[in-house]
Amino acid sequence: MDVATIIGILLGFTVVFGAIVSGGGWQIFFNLPSLAITIGGMLCATLIHFSLPQFLGIFSVVKKTIVAKIPPPSELIQRMVNYAAINRRDGALALEQEIGNVGDLFFVKGLQMLVDGQDPEAIRELMGLEIQNLQGRHSTGKKILEFMGAAAPAFGMIGTLIGLVQMLRSLESPESIGAGMATALLTTFYGALAANLIFLPLAGKLGIYSKAESTAKEMIVEGIHAIAKGDNPTTVREKMQAFISQGRREEVKANI
Amino acid sequence: MDVATIIGILLGFTVVFGAIVSGGGWQIFFNLPSLAITIGGMLCATLIHFSLPQFLGIFSVVKKTIVAKIPPPSELIQRMVNYAAINRRDGALALEQEIGNVGDLFFVKGLQMLVDGQDPEAIRELMGLEIQNLQGRHSTGKKILEFMGAAAPAFGMIGTLIGLVQMLRSLESPESIGAGMATALLTTFYGALAANLIFLPLAGKLGIYSKAESTAKEMIVEGIHAIAKGDNPTTVREKMQAFISQGRREEVKANI
Amino acid sequence: MDVATIIGILLGFTVVFGAIVSGGGWQIFFNLPSLAITIGGMLCATLIHFSLPQFLGIFSVVKKTIVAKIPPPSELIQRMVNYAAINRRDGALALEQEIGNVGDLFFVKGLQMLVDGQDPEAIRELMGLEIQNLQGRHSTGKKILEFMGAAAPAFGMIGTLIGLVQMLRSLESPESIGAGMATALLTTFYGALAANLIFLPLAGKLGIYSKAESTAKEMIVEGIHAIAKGDNPTTVREKMQAFISQGRREEVKANI
Amino acid sequence: MDVATIIGILLGFTVVFGAIVSGGGWQIFFNLPSLAITIGGMLCATLIHFSLPQFLGIFSVVKKTIVAKIPPPSELIQRMVNYAAINRRDGALALEQEIGNVGDLFFVKGLQMLVDGQDPEAIRELMGLEIQNLQGRHSTGKKILEFMGAAAPAFGMIGTLIGLVQMLRSLESPESIGAGMATALLTTFYGALAANLIFLPLAGKLGIYSKAESTAKEMIVEGIHAIAKGDNPTTVREKMQAFISQGRREEVKANI
Amino acid sequence: MDVATIIGILLGFTVVFGAIVSGGGWQIFFNLPSLAITIGGMLCATLIHFSLPQFLGIFSVVKKTIVAKIPPPSELIQRMVNYAAINRRDGALALEQEIGNVGDLFFVKGLQMLVDGQDPEAIRELMGLEIQNLQGRHSTGKKILEFMGAAAPAFGMIGTLIGLVQMLRSLESPESIGAGMATALLTTFYGALAANLIFLPLAGKLGIYSKAESTAKEMIVEGIHAIAKGDNPTTVREKMQAFISQGRREEVKANI
Repeated sequence: MDVATIIGILLGFTVVFGAIVSGGGWQIFFNLPSLAITIGGMLCATLIHFSLPQFLGIFSVVKKTIVAKIPPPSELIQRMVNYAAINRRDGALALEQEIGNVGDLFFVKGLQMLVDGQDPEAIRELMGLEIQNLQGRHSTGKKILEFMGAAAPAFGMIGTLIGLVQMLRSLESPESIGAGMATALLTTFYGALAANLIFLPLAGKLGIYSKAESTAKEMIVEGIHAIAKGDNPTTVREKMQAFISQGRREEVKANI
Repeated sequence: MDVATIIGILLGFTVVFGAIVSGGGWQIFFNLPSLAITIGGMLCATLIHFSLPQFLGIFSVVKKTIVAKIPPPSELIQRMVNYAAINRRDGALALEQEIGNVGDLFFVKGLQMLVDGQDPEAIRELMGLEIQNLQGRHSTGKKILEFMGAAAPAFGMIGTLIGLVQMLRSLESPESIGAGMATALLTTFYGALAANLIFLPLAGKLGIYSKAESTAKEMIVEGIHAIAKGDNPTTVREKMQAFISQGRREEVKANI
Repeated sequence: MDVATIIGILLGFTVVFGAIVSGGGWQIFFNLPSLAITIGGMLCATLIHFSLPQFLGIFSVVKKTIVAKIPPPSELIQRMVNYAAINRRDGALALEQEIGNVGDLFFVKGLQMLVDGQDPEAIRELMGLEIQNLQGRHSTGKKILEFMGAAAPAFGMIGTLIGLVQMLRSLESPESIGAGMATALLTTFYGALAANLIFLPLAGKLGIYSKAESTAKEMIVEGIHAIAKGDNPTTVREKMQAFISQGRREEVKANI
Repeated sequence: MDVATIIGILLGFTVVFGAIVSGGGWQIFFNLPSLAITIGGMLCATLIHFSLPQFLGIFSVVKKTIVAKIPPPSELIQRMVNYAAINRRDGALALEQEIGNVGDLFFVKGLQMLVDGQDPEAIRELMGLEIQNLQGRHSTGKKILEFMGAAAPAFGMIGTLIGLVQMLRSLESPESIGAGMATALLTTFYGALAANLIFLPLAGKLGIYSKAESTAKEMIVEGIHAIAKGDNPTTVREKMQAFISQGRREEVKANI
Repeated sequence: MDVATIIGILLGFTVVFGAIVSGGGWQIFFNLPSLAITIGGMLCATLIHFSLPQFLGIFSVVKKTIVAKIPPPSELIQRMVNYAAINRRDGALALEQEIGNVGDLFFVKGLQMLVDGQDPEAIRELMGLEIQNLQGRHSTGKKILEFMGAAAPAFGMIGTLIGLVQMLRSLESPESIGAGMATALLTTFYGALAANLIFLPLAGKLGIYSKAESTAKEMIVEGIHAIAKGDNPTTVREKMQAFISQGRREEVKANI
């Protein structure tokens, strides 16, 4: 669970809401037609740009970014070193009962191939392809969020232009000028807020999450590949530690 | 037929029209001279930038993007696996009667070369060149749409400047200020709407469509090349599946 | 002669002029001092950025882009196939009398080297260097036009700032506010129009023209090189056709 | 200690404060709610974009950029030439007592490995990895500061939109228009000042500092590597001088 | 001496000054506090971004760009062909008396190494390193000027925001609105003028000058290297002419 994202969004809306309430009622900042044109226009433009499956997939990609838990490298290394020791002592088949203890489906798949005695290079190639597909999905998700972050202010401006034209046409009632302009500006406000507090930062987080998850998965592939080749626990640890920075490396011993 | 594009455009205009109607009559948003300078100026700038054939070709490129149907990979693989089996059983000439069942001209051309017994490498090179030309046309189309998406708001602003100058010069009639500014803003509105609801999203869709069509055509080339080399149906399937992600691969058997 | 450029510029100014006239007199849109600061400032910035010869060369580059006629590939191929046949039948010297029929200086130079019996590789290298120089000139021209397209709106804004300051300082005569602001906005209008209807589209056209001319010249080099090596007309045709897309290739026979 | 950064920030705020005071009281430029939405919104967006450790690490990265002192190349070369002479005369173990005189931890670590008699290539690889990690941290820090430099003006604009809507809604009290707009503009002012006087220049400085520190560390690695290989002082000097420009090179002799 | 730069700057300020004077007195456009915040803020941001030596070096880099005279290629070739002939006739030592006639320090240094009988490859490597350092200095100078060109309008806007807030707070004296806004806009005017007439074009010129000077220096290195290897005058000429375009090459003969 990525706490920073949730804190950031909640706190951000609290700050904005606080500024709104401190200056008067919040009702003048809520206008359904304004919301409809800003968010609706943005969603329509996104639908035109991307294909239907890509568009529908963005919600699950974002949800996974926030909810998913990437195991810390040290945990991955400890686990893999244990498996290497078991593999050397009892053979690959003895790893079968460990599969139930692993939550991550990608890890399970790798272990299963190990138990099945598949060729090390074949395991690496197949799992490497899955990582590529994962990165492709993340990259598309990032592009969609960035497009939304560009489209939201654009439709906010379009909504403000509509409101301005309508207001200017009814200048006969001068007392309504202020209210008309205020409403016209709301769409620009919605667009700027949606882009800068949601879409653009989320696109950035997706990129950072994608890199972290890819690294974790690459460490798993490296570890499984090493075990499949019959490397001893120390070699497995060293190969996996090549992915993390010097300062964070710890001495890990097989613990079985 | 790309449903997302059509839904997006229709829904987008409905949303904008709804916002307009909910705030008064739609007539004040329709002004022929304003439309003429925004769209006319943009088209003229596009004519200056690109050559006449490129300019005229954009309409057919866009139409094809929306209308064209890219066959799903599984269908392509099934079909090619069948042809591989026929080729192994009855020889390449037996494929001649299958040509009539294929709708895609690119596929037909490949099959014809197969039946004619041309060299596998020659087939691959020739069809690869056609894919390159296709990508070139799509890339030019994308550039034209992106230029239109930049030119439309620019000429919208030029139109607004013209309207503002005219309005400011006739300040003697103060009651006309509002109406004058409203009309002046219309061109900016047209430019922003055209760019953000049509040109820029369509340019994005063209890029996504281009990638999908190229992949489908590359799979056809790979399959025809494999059959021409005399590969068995299983090898043909495996070679074509290398283009699609692990999760979407299915077991396919020759079905003839 | 590139018709699209001329039509685009003429039609574009007609559209803008139409919008101006339909809203009142054109005189209020013509202001010499405003024109002087926008165009003058832009030209001065361009002078500072580029060297004097580059600056002066831009006019001839643009003129050539509009006026020059790139021979269609089929014509080039037909001509070269004929020369190849003459070369095979009567020897290279027999080509000397054909030189007079060729308008393009680059082509003439190549033929002359052919007649002089120079080494094929030397011909290719020397003519290739000329193409590189041509592309360098075009690339500099494109950069100048793009800089002008960025500088014109910037000096338009500078002019408007000057006008606004002057207008705001003389608020004692309130009836002049409108006229003052109208004049101030004229420089922004000039800058936006010059950039979007002239400089930026012309920079784009220069890029497209440069690519087309380079391809034509590369075809000439390829053809001369093949003839110099003594290739037969069919080989010459095939080598030159590699530059054009499959669909546009035609059967060409020596016609002498 | 980077004097330019500190002078720049102090002087910059002095200039801005001077402009504020010279035009009236500074109190009208201090508004806590405006500050809260601009800085708070920016911090929240940054939290969403980056992970919590990255976010918290930015302060130490910036502090180190300003406070840290990169030793001048000539000092590094002199020191390393001395060590090379000691190493040749008394052996690597004699360097142990020099470790206490070195302040930089990275340098200490390298010397320690030298004294421990580790393999030259192993030393280079291990220390090279540390430089890579350092550059990664700096690069992330630069991205965070650049994002802050983009988010601050965005939330400044959002704050101004909130203020404008509130002001326009309360037009019944016309005397408050000026004060309302002034307050609304404060957030834009805060955002522009924070981005242009702090975040964007600091991001640039971080890039320049990162390059300088990397070069110094690479010189240390090169020197330690050469000593470990048993090179004489002259060769060590020449290898380290390859990192600095011709004009700055000086004759350095072992001084022990 | 680069005439275009000087003409451009003088003419540019004349055009702007003309527009100012033609619309009233120039005094309203001169305001010391406005100048202080725009230029002062920009200089402070530049100080924060770059290191002190880089910041101080920019003035000498710009001065050299304007004042320095790059010898025309034909002059360089003529001179080097003469030296090659002297070298072949009388030996390298005979070149010593020519050193006094060469103004350029880089050229002198190369000749000196030639006279000293250094190894051709050593000469090329050493002088090549100096060219790299030169390009590095120019590239840093270009980045500083581009940053100034971005910071000047930013601090212009900050100044305008300060002025607007102050003006809006003192609306009780309505007659001062115009004057207040006029003064507020002055900083934006200064920033836009400084960026578009000075910093951005100068950054561009620095790039063009850097390329021209590098080419001249590379020609010198190539020539000295050829003479050091004992090439005859004709070969020296041909090697140096490879740097200039076909059309500008002239027949050069040793003239001693």
